[in-house]
Amino acid sequence: MPSADVMFTPGTLLARIDSPADLRALSEDQLQQVCDELRDYIIDVVAVHGGHFGASLGVVEMTVAAHYVFDTPHDQLVWDVGHQAYGHKIITGRRDNFPTQRKYGGLSGFPKRSESEYDTFGVAHASTSISAALGMAKARDIKGTNEKVVAIIGDGAMTGGLAFEGLNNAGTAGTDLLVILNDNRMSIDPNVGALNEYLASVASGKIWNELRDDVWTILEKLRGVGGGTLQKIAARVENGLKATLTPGMLFEALGFRYFGPIDGHDVNALVDRLQNLKDLKGPILLHTLTTKGKGFAPAEADQVKWHASGSPFDKVTGKSLAVATSNGTKPPKWQDVFGHTMIDLAKQDERIVGITAAMPSGTSLKYMIAEMPDRAFDVGIAEMHGVVFAAGLATQGLKPFVAIYSTFLQRAYDGIIHDVALQDLPVVFCMDRAGVAGADGPTHHGALDVAYLRCVPHIVCAAPLDEQDLRDLMFTAAGYDDGPFAIRYPRGAATGMPLREGFEPIEIGQGQKIADGTDIAFLTYGAIGQYVYEARERLRAHGIDAAHYDLRFCKPLDHELLTEVFATFDKVITVEDGVVVGGAGSAVLEWLADHSDAQPDVLRLGLPDHFVEHGSQRELHDEVGIGPDGLVDHALAFMGEEQHIEAA
Amino acid sequence: MPSADVMFTPGTLLARIDSPADLRALSEDQLQQVCDELRDYIIDVVAVHGGHFGASLGVVEMTVAAHYVFDTPHDQLVWDVGHQAYGHKIITGRRDNFPTQRKYGGLSGFPKRSESEYDTFGVAHASTSISAALGMAKARDIKGTNEKVVAIIGDGAMTGGLAFEGLNNAGTAGTDLLVILNDNRMSIDPNVGALNEYLASVASGKIWNELRDDVWTILEKLRGVGGGTLQKIAARVENGLKATLTPGMLFEALGFRYFGPIDGHDVNALVDRLQNLKDLKGPILLHTLTTKGKGFAPAEADQVKWHASGSPFDKVTGKSLAVATSNGTKPPKWQDVFGHTMIDLAKQDERIVGITAAMPSGTSLKYMIAEMPDRAFDVGIAEMHGVVFAAGLATQGLKPFVAIYSTFLQRAYDGIIHDVALQDLPVVFCMDRAGVAGADGPTHHGALDVAYLRCVPHIVCAAPLDEQDLRDLMFTAAGYDDGPFAIRYPRGAATGMPLREGFEPIEIGQGQKIADGTDIAFLTYGAIGQYVYEARERLRAHGIDAAHYDLRFCKPLDHELLTEVFATFDKVITVEDGVVVGGAGSAVLEWLADHSDAQPDVLRLGLPDHFVEHGSQRELHDEVGIGPDGLVDHALAFMGEEQHIEAA
Repeated sequence: MPSADVMFTPGTLLARIDSPADLRALSEDQLQQVCDELRDYIIDVVAVHGGHFGASLGVVEMTVAAHYVFDTPHDQLVWDVGHQAYGHKIITGRRDNFPTQRKYGGLSGFPKRSESEYDTFGVAHASTSISAALGMAKARDIKGTNEKVVAIIGDGAMTGGLAFEGLNNAGTAGTDLLVILNDNRMSIDPNVGALNEYLASVASGKIWNELRDDVWTILEKLRGVGGGTLQKIAARVENGLKATLTPGMLFEALGFRYFGPIDGHDVNALVDRLQNLKDLKGPILLHTLTTKGKGFAPAEADQVKWHASGSPFDKVTGKSLAVATSNGTKPPKWQDVFGHTMIDLAKQDERIVGITAAMPSGTSLKYMIAEMPDRAFDVGIAEMHGVVFAAGLATQGLKPFVAIYSTFLQRAYDGIIHDVALQDLPVVFCMDRAGVAGADGPTHHGALDVAYLRCVPHIVCAAPLDEQDLRDLMFTAAGYDDGPFAIRYPRGAATGMPLREGFEPIEIGQGQKIADGTDIAFLTYGAIGQYVYEARERLRAHGIDAAHYDLRFCKPLDHELLTEVFATFDKVITVEDGVVVGGAGSAVLEWLADHSDAQPDVLRLGLPDHFVEHGSQRELHDEVGIGPDGLVDHALAFMGEEQHIEAA
Repeated sequence: MPSADVMFTPGTLLARIDSPADLRALSEDQLQQVCDELRDYIIDVVAVHGGHFGASLGVVEMTVAAHYVFDTPHDQLVWDVGHQAYGHKIITGRRDNFPTQRKYGGLSGFPKRSESEYDTFGVAHASTSISAALGMAKARDIKGTNEKVVAIIGDGAMTGGLAFEGLNNAGTAGTDLLVILNDNRMSIDPNVGALNEYLASVASGKIWNELRDDVWTILEKLRGVGGGTLQKIAARVENGLKATLTPGMLFEALGFRYFGPIDGHDVNALVDRLQNLKDLKGPILLHTLTTKGKGFAPAEADQVKWHASGSPFDKVTGKSLAVATSNGTKPPKWQDVFGHTMIDLAKQDERIVGITAAMPSGTSLKYMIAEMPDRAFDVGIAEMHGVVFAAGLATQGLKPFVAIYSTFLQRAYDGIIHDVALQDLPVVFCMDRAGVAGADGPTHHGALDVAYLRCVPHIVCAAPLDEQDLRDLMFTAAGYDDGPFAIRYPRGAATGMPLREGFEPIEIGQGQKIADGTDIAFLTYGAIGQYVYEARERLRAHGIDAAHYDLRFCKPLDHELLTEVFATFDKVITVEDGVVVGGAGSAVLEWLADHSDAQPDVLRLGLPDHFVEHGSQRELHDEVGIGPDGLVDHALAFMGEEQHIEAA
């Protein structure tokens, strides 16, 4: 564990809560104070260390109420996504370590089974909680044990198809399951889609409650005026309406008993309600209304901005306390290069449309959505739908660019294969957060896309070394009509290089020689190749003259370039920011086996065949040996081997 | 195109329909005759050639009505799954070729863009139609054209999360889209889940229609007795109820205008209804009730059995006309070995549970569902939910076996990574239809699972050479608690070998030497290795003595076995029934690069880097060169190369 460099002082009650058992020893009238202290503690820590916290502030009362009513960890709480689990972590024994969260070696930013027995299910990708909780409930039934199982899911995550599949199955599965819908009317960005509008109408009570009141008034009158038959009909109607005309009829149609909506910031009311619900049989849905960022005024006022904070801020005003950089010219983020390039391309090619799955901010497609709202779509937390929707657009001659993080594109894998590649549809996949994603950790690393896409027939796979190449690759993809085209680029800052006006096409499959050398060659794929500049300099100090080639495409490969490389070097190091199993380095091995008589030594560097934890990108690259230090060390050892073999 | 060996005679009207324009030239009172002739023609052809047809018989009237009302191919019809598209194919210019469908070189069994301009979107995996159609509708809006877009989706496919995502997006997308829900209350197997029960209650009218009638009666009475205020309230209630209290309130909650349910077998009523709906704005859902297998009595009576027919049958009685095999002992299907082994294992290990996603028949989990209904689950068309549900079960100490076809497991890819592997949960994936699937074609081939699973950390990947190994691998997986374990096996018949009682564990990662040899080695993965027995014999006639090793695991690999192979042979042929890009052969190349100083020639055989079409499994194996002929030819050429090099 990294040590916390600033000490934080929890309130008097929170200071005594080392586990939920301590919370449960308190009286109900102390719970509001616990909530206040918990909220303050979260704000105190995040103001210094950053982190996701809008969602956590919104569920402080629910967190306290759930651990107060349920016998955790015997009872199983499953937090969907996990952005909202800070309070949960703090009251389940991780209060003092909480400032280490999202730091290298520290606590995870998400619930994680290996971290605590209270973290029943690792989460981070949305909409898994109902399915996982249903599995736990069925396991309980099979084993004959008696734990309660509770899924806590936001309205954003509820729009994912997986959540619907979970509800649909749970509605007839014949087991006891409580789903708490934490409705704050937000994802990271505002929610989209019909379910969102439906929930808003439920929350406002516009249709159902008024209508129900009207019907009740009529029925009341009828008691006075109607005859016997009419009375009977009226009673039947009343019962029927009670069953159907509730604000939760959507959930009741799916087999759930619906309760709510109730105020999710009244901790005592929540406790009462949960105590009432906890022994009910069958699938139950409790609908709570909360405010994202609750209790921190700046976050309540701008919920998108305050979904998370990366830098220190004043805990009252929210004003950033980050030290300004000296000259104010920071390199652009990769995502912003993508976002602005989309607009440049769309202006000159009317076929181009943009799609994001609930991440307009995270992908920076928001710029195009603002400027060209008819040609840029946020489909919600629905990656698979987004890809098939893109396929539909492409059948009509449009050119969809689908901006989905590498890790989330795993959700749409079948759409890429069955709906796009199999039909040779020209859909462009722009994968942000490819490679290690940093503080979000293993759930968010884009470690696998090279391997899982490269095997798909008919796809072009590319990765830019710098932001100029990203722009030119996007331009190239826009002009490519023969099938899918995938471009991966990392989280964070690009190089800051000057960008030329306009675009230049890149020949499909063409790599580039970055630097000559005589002793050994680095063959890199994507922005990770930037580390080679430093590594080459340092190797020169060791008397090693390393060449650097940039593959730029891992499918198709550059035959001419590879022929040159393997004609020149018998020691080649491939470097990629993705798993080495099946990755770009393996593509090179396949090329060698299929096309070359050369018998070089190839050292494949990249992410290892285990999940990499969280930390800064640089810390993680260093950990796995693909930072500049790692490249130098690997090259020295690799050359040393040769010397060893030659000496032998 | 293969020629049809039996001639079929369509009815007099159908014989003149070479395109939908010919259909539209008919009068409305001729349409029922067209339907009758179409149904007869489908039954005639399928009775001889086999095929999916229960679904197609159910939508004969809808097919005729849709092409009659809509101006296809200008207007866009998107058939979900495509099992129901036989009638569509026949009236869109493919009548005479229809008997070639599902045969090598013949028509596809599914809609396919490359086959016809009337096939607007290639389908086969369920639940894609609404998303694709929404893309087409948005493209129309962007382009300013005027085509209608219609998705036709079954109630089974409607339960998939992707369909929900499509509805949710379409409900607020501000575009015109007609979704026709073809409700036959079946998938391939009976539907499960809450949506199914909801639709049944809609179809029966039990809740909504009766309730609505009651309310209407009351309101009618109030017109006579109530005062002015009461009248106003009554009018408001009536309007409110009209908006909310429809049988389709679930769909209306998602932003659709709902119409129905109507009889899907009254072609003239369907025509009238579609004509009324076709110019309505916004998202519209038309709910039709149909009978799967309609018009063919045996199929109406046993809808699971008659979802498809593989062999000739009497077109009146349904009695099979397949010639009985001489001794009646056929080798078991791989799926049945799986299904029976599940029961054997579950009897001796109470932790074992089984999961299928809407394929109890296709995976043969049906045996366990029948015998142990509390421990075997059909979660519906919901692969991703099935995997996360399994993860939930595994957190509680159970041992889920998830039986999903290789191609459908693509739908659950993120669940495998994010929910199972990342948490080291011991979930066993049993992938039927791994490798080429046969007549179902490229949408159904299990071509990619080796590549897309092998890159996932913490997973064990195995493939049995024969059914004894399948049983022992399943037993081994049941005893493995360290993480996910994937087992792939093909469609169709296993070897018919005698099976020993009980089980023997296999060491994780351990391959086996099948046959010694001196000249060259085959290194095979999975049941495709069966072809090597014949290939070795034939190579011997050429003077070549080939060894045969069975990898059995592609992750982890067998270091000892590979060390032996590459110490002994400098020419090695890897063989797998999956794409060579990133496949088991690449795993061997990676092993060589990482662990060996050997510099052998490795020839990787498997599925090519393009999509393989349909045909019998043997035809396809021969086409891509991994049938016995291909293995012999490749080995001879490979050896010849060596002789050539030695001679040079």
